[in-house]
Amino acid sequence: MDISIIVPIGGIVALLFATYLFFNVKKQSQGNEKMRNLSNAIREGAMAFLKSEYKVLFVFVIVVTTLLFIASSIPGSEMDQGLAIAFIIGAIFSAVSGNIGMRVATMANSRTAEGTKKNLSKGLSIAFSSGAVMGMCVVGLGILGVLIIYIIFNDPSILFGFGFGASSIALFARVGGGIYTKSADVGADLVGKLEAGIPEDDPRNPAVIADQVGDNVGDVAGMGADLFESYVDSIIATMVLATIAAAGSSITGFTPDEFSKNAIYFPLIIASMGIFASIIGTMIVVFGKGKNVYGALRNSLFVATGLTAVLGAILTYYVIGRFEPFYAMLGGLIAGIVIGLSTEYYTSEKRKPVKLIAESSRTGPATVIIQGLMTGMMSTIVPIIAVVIAMIFAHYFAGFYGVAISAVGMLSILGVSLATDCYGPVADNAQGISEMAGMGSEIRERTEQLDAVGNTTAAMGKGFAIGSAAITSLALIFTYIVTAEKIMGAGKTLDLSLSDPYLISGIFIGAMLPFVFTALTMGAVGRAAYAMVEEVRYQFKEFGLLKSDKNKPDYARCVKISTNQALKEMILPSLLAVISPVVIGLILGPEGLGGLLVGSIASGFLLAVFLANSGGAWDNAKKYIESGNLGGKGSDSHKATIIGDTVGDPFKDTAGPSLNILIKLMSIVSLVFLPLIIAFN
Amino acid sequence: MDISIIVPIGGIVALLFATYLFFNVKKQSQGNEKMRNLSNAIREGAMAFLKSEYKVLFVFVIVVTTLLFIASSIPGSEMDQGLAIAFIIGAIFSAVSGNIGMRVATMANSRTAEGTKKNLSKGLSIAFSSGAVMGMCVVGLGILGVLIIYIIFNDPSILFGFGFGASSIALFARVGGGIYTKSADVGADLVGKLEAGIPEDDPRNPAVIADQVGDNVGDVAGMGADLFESYVDSIIATMVLATIAAAGSSITGFTPDEFSKNAIYFPLIIASMGIFASIIGTMIVVFGKGKNVYGALRNSLFVATGLTAVLGAILTYYVIGRFEPFYAMLGGLIAGIVIGLSTEYYTSEKRKPVKLIAESSRTGPATVIIQGLMTGMMSTIVPIIAVVIAMIFAHYFAGFYGVAISAVGMLSILGVSLATDCYGPVADNAQGISEMAGMGSEIRERTEQLDAVGNTTAAMGKGFAIGSAAITSLALIFTYIVTAEKIMGAGKTLDLSLSDPYLISGIFIGAMLPFVFTALTMGAVGRAAYAMVEEVRYQFKEFGLLKSDKNKPDYARCVKISTNQALKEMILPSLLAVISPVVIGLILGPEGLGGLLVGSIASGFLLAVFLANSGGAWDNAKKYIESGNLGGKGSDSHKATIIGDTVGDPFKDTAGPSLNILIKLMSIVSLVFLPLIIAFN
Repeated sequence: MDISIIVPIGGIVALLFATYLFFNVKKQSQGNEKMRNLSNAIREGAMAFLKSEYKVLFVFVIVVTTLLFIASSIPGSEMDQGLAIAFIIGAIFSAVSGNIGMRVATMANSRTAEGTKKNLSKGLSIAFSSGAVMGMCVVGLGILGVLIIYIIFNDPSILFGFGFGASSIALFARVGGGIYTKSADVGADLVGKLEAGIPEDDPRNPAVIADQVGDNVGDVAGMGADLFESYVDSIIATMVLATIAAAGSSITGFTPDEFSKNAIYFPLIIASMGIFASIIGTMIVVFGKGKNVYGALRNSLFVATGLTAVLGAILTYYVIGRFEPFYAMLGGLIAGIVIGLSTEYYTSEKRKPVKLIAESSRTGPATVIIQGLMTGMMSTIVPIIAVVIAMIFAHYFAGFYGVAISAVGMLSILGVSLATDCYGPVADNAQGISEMAGMGSEIRERTEQLDAVGNTTAAMGKGFAIGSAAITSLALIFTYIVTAEKIMGAGKTLDLSLSDPYLISGIFIGAMLPFVFTALTMGAVGRAAYAMVEEVRYQFKEFGLLKSDKNKPDYARCVKISTNQALKEMILPSLLAVISPVVIGLILGPEGLGGLLVGSIASGFLLAVFLANSGGAWDNAKKYIESGNLGGKGSDSHKATIIGDTVGDPFKDTAGPSLNILIKLMSIVSLVFLPLIIAFN
Repeated sequence: MDISIIVPIGGIVALLFATYLFFNVKKQSQGNEKMRNLSNAIREGAMAFLKSEYKVLFVFVIVVTTLLFIASSIPGSEMDQGLAIAFIIGAIFSAVSGNIGMRVATMANSRTAEGTKKNLSKGLSIAFSSGAVMGMCVVGLGILGVLIIYIIFNDPSILFGFGFGASSIALFARVGGGIYTKSADVGADLVGKLEAGIPEDDPRNPAVIADQVGDNVGDVAGMGADLFESYVDSIIATMVLATIAAAGSSITGFTPDEFSKNAIYFPLIIASMGIFASIIGTMIVVFGKGKNVYGALRNSLFVATGLTAVLGAILTYYVIGRFEPFYAMLGGLIAGIVIGLSTEYYTSEKRKPVKLIAESSRTGPATVIIQGLMTGMMSTIVPIIAVVIAMIFAHYFAGFYGVAISAVGMLSILGVSLATDCYGPVADNAQGISEMAGMGSEIRERTEQLDAVGNTTAAMGKGFAIGSAAITSLALIFTYIVTAEKIMGAGKTLDLSLSDPYLISGIFIGAMLPFVFTALTMGAVGRAAYAMVEEVRYQFKEFGLLKSDKNKPDYARCVKISTNQALKEMILPSLLAVISPVVIGLILGPEGLGGLLVGSIASGFLLAVFLANSGGAWDNAKKYIESGNLGGKGSDSHKATIIGDTVGDPFKDTAGPSLNILIKLMSIVSLVFLPLIIAFN
């Protein structure tokens, strides 16, 4: 029997396990009526966002599909019409996994809060199970989607369409979701906390539900779609590189043909193996009874990583006949861990960088800002070096193919690592519900404990998402080079040399785009938040919300404002991301486009790390002071760090994560339209 | 007679004109005793800084010279021992022009203030004359230095040593000077304005002289050395590219040999012609009688630019026999103007971006910060596109040689444009002296008027400095490629392809270095300013400065603190700049080093524009409010913009300008050590 049968089995098992966890979460008690109502309001808000998003998305998918059909009908463009079909399927698969993830996350919040009544590990189990549903859906649908398209078309380059579909959803979820979550958060805080002086998560604040919805929209749907994209892109890149066998031929004793047959299925096999490792890792938390929340999450990741490493070595030798690709994979896994740890170092309130930011508050907000920016800039060193070493290492052992495999290795345990990410917003919501429903201090303490661990894992998860986006993009660049050479054939040659001014121009413009994209997304948050501020002020005044408890806020209106603003504001940055590579490709040719991709990945990676870590460090500097240091809450130092945190919010939750999408999307758009660009040059 | 005789004539005329202007400034009245004392204190402080700097510099030069001798003695390194001699001469020439510039600038401040007593144009004439001394010394010594080295060694690649020497001084002047000026400024303001509540430039503030010294150290010595470096580097790059004639052979009907003879002297001829154009431009201001300060400065630049364009066309045809290099040169000139105008747009208080920042102060300092960062990021578009178009345009007409010539074109009117830059700090000092000496409101208004125009031209000057650094660095990259190919010879080949993971690694690491460099320089300002704050607090308390006018502050101690801190803090970033290219070159080879240079230039250029324009915009948003908008001085909006300005200070005056040096220095270090790097790979 062929080992590749493990691929559909892995995908199906992931979905079955997700189904099991889903019903396991569903059968838990929702708590009392107040809790049910709050949870329902959040779910309705989340679904309202998704519904509105789908309307825009539907138009977007229709337009792009039409364009893909037209582009593939242009004589000489050599684009395959299958790309359009793969695009639609990619979009649907990503959207479905996001939808399921949102449903279970918004279902699990009140159940988590209720579960903590029994004990902490019960709450942890529910919250983590809901995250694992998302994780398993992403890897299951990802692997099955790639497999189906490959079986139908028997041409890996059609898979670029699938990746493009996944990228489009990620764009909507990350950019739109990022704008949503921060406009709601900032709007709720500015009027509620600062102007009206009521606490966070106070049910009288009309934006409070939008804020809770935002956590799910940004951190569940956004993170899930982002990593779905990285996951399938890394697999696709590996498969294409294996097909154009020259790229990987250096690593084997086979002939190129023999090699490519085995090597094409290899990333899917590794991914499938990772699913089983992730399931075992997940079980450690779901069925665990311990009280150490952070320890349980960490152990689940360690076990999954260890299993992947051991099984990966065996499978590599079995499938490829040599160990070299395994070394590449191991490099990716280690780089992922190193980047996660580096993120933790720069953003943890227990470490020196955050303490230095907190201490700089003695001299006011300006020094807090400067210190935070410096921290973010310094924090780029380790991730860049880690990715560079992983790339050189992987390339040394297995060429371009190895670089793609190292991305697959890094992402192979996504089933469990995404569960850890999506657990965060569920715990955060549970904490909000326990606050709003007045569940008493003991329960609140427990949900706070869950939430605090969620914040730590969220920082590491962000680092991991950025690192995997960078190495996936590098794999896509090499795929771009190999694909371009293949399309051009023997007649033309692709000279990607630095002595070409078009290529250097591409690098310059590519390096500029993340700066512009960041400015656009941060500006979007500002405008959306302003609309929310006006609405909250209006409701406070007109509905007399602070005068009597009988006056109820209209949560839905705030949800609607966040939704509409987010969808409106994401148009410009999205167009920039999709159109730039095509336009630059047509003007500067495939060489200039190659430069554009390299420039945008280098600069986008740096900015993403800088923004995420500055933002995370400011957030925790504020928390460090809130926990009683340097004068504690209400002191001048506290106020200074609140300003830092407000600057950091769009950094870490909108602009930074959106850059992950930008760099991958531009690469995949380039690959999709490459035949057209080459034909017209 | 050979046209190249214009080169030494141009250089000597520049120095003669500088001498004339120097004595013309010197013979003006210094004003009353109080003014003389203040001016003397500033000059003594400035000279004290230079003296301390020279001590460190002396050690640095000795060490580097020794290293150059050792490196060129290593068997097989093929480095020429002449590099060390050229290095010393480059360092001395740059230091001498900076020294003269500082002397005349610190001599002109009280004379300018006294001159405005007569009328505005008298004050303008004195301040501008002093700036023109610096401008003429830079271009005169620059052109003569290059000529002398070339005549002695008859090998343009020895000139890299001269460029390296100039770079080293620029590093000290820009990085050290940038740290100096902001530590003094921030230290004086934080304690004086905010804690003690005394006005800016109050003579009771012990840091007030250090602050005035800082203006000269940063904006006269720093700017001068920065542009000296760009000026000579662009000429050197052109000469080397002309020698390795293949690079330019595409543009002529000559044989490569014939071409190179003419083309080698061509940049020097253009530069010399620019000197004459600059002298005429300078005369418009120096001998002008009009009251429109801004108009006079603008006209002088326009006349010089116009003359350069017309004479450039004629000379190009005469020397090269074709017009193509002239088009390249024109592209550079226009790009310089476009970048200057773009800087003006993004940082002027009359334009929308600054007004938006000011308006964002309604919602507090956090939104001021976000809006300023966004402005800086958006402002990268025009400069990047301008440089890219200039490069493609120049390359289209005249290959790599054309790119270098476009940099020469951009910098050809440096004699007058640097005068405009250096006029700023003199006007600023004059304003400070009129304030401190209590010269009455009429004089103060006039000096304020001079100062205000200086702020506008300073912003444009910064944009010009960044743009010229970027295009000079591009010329150096192409020089690097051509030189590497020449050194490798027929045996090896240099494959600078994006498909090389070492090259991509170089790009990634290169793109990271400006982030790290920025973090280091901003941190240095913070630490140096903190030392100054402590000293000012100490003097206020111990000397009882605020209790009685009889108690005099010890200005010299503050000057010493700024000096020592600046020189101490510049060591780490400087080492990073000098050592990185050598280390990366030895590890990743000449391909990786090529990537490093491209990555660092792209990212450094973007960050430099971003930092300079964010900082400039915040500064002017504050001034916009201070002039009575949005509640004016003392309002919450004002306080919010003060925070923005404080963040922006190290952005625009330390980190941003230092990046100009970083990208050029790394390129020139790479060129100097290239034979060694190739030999060891």
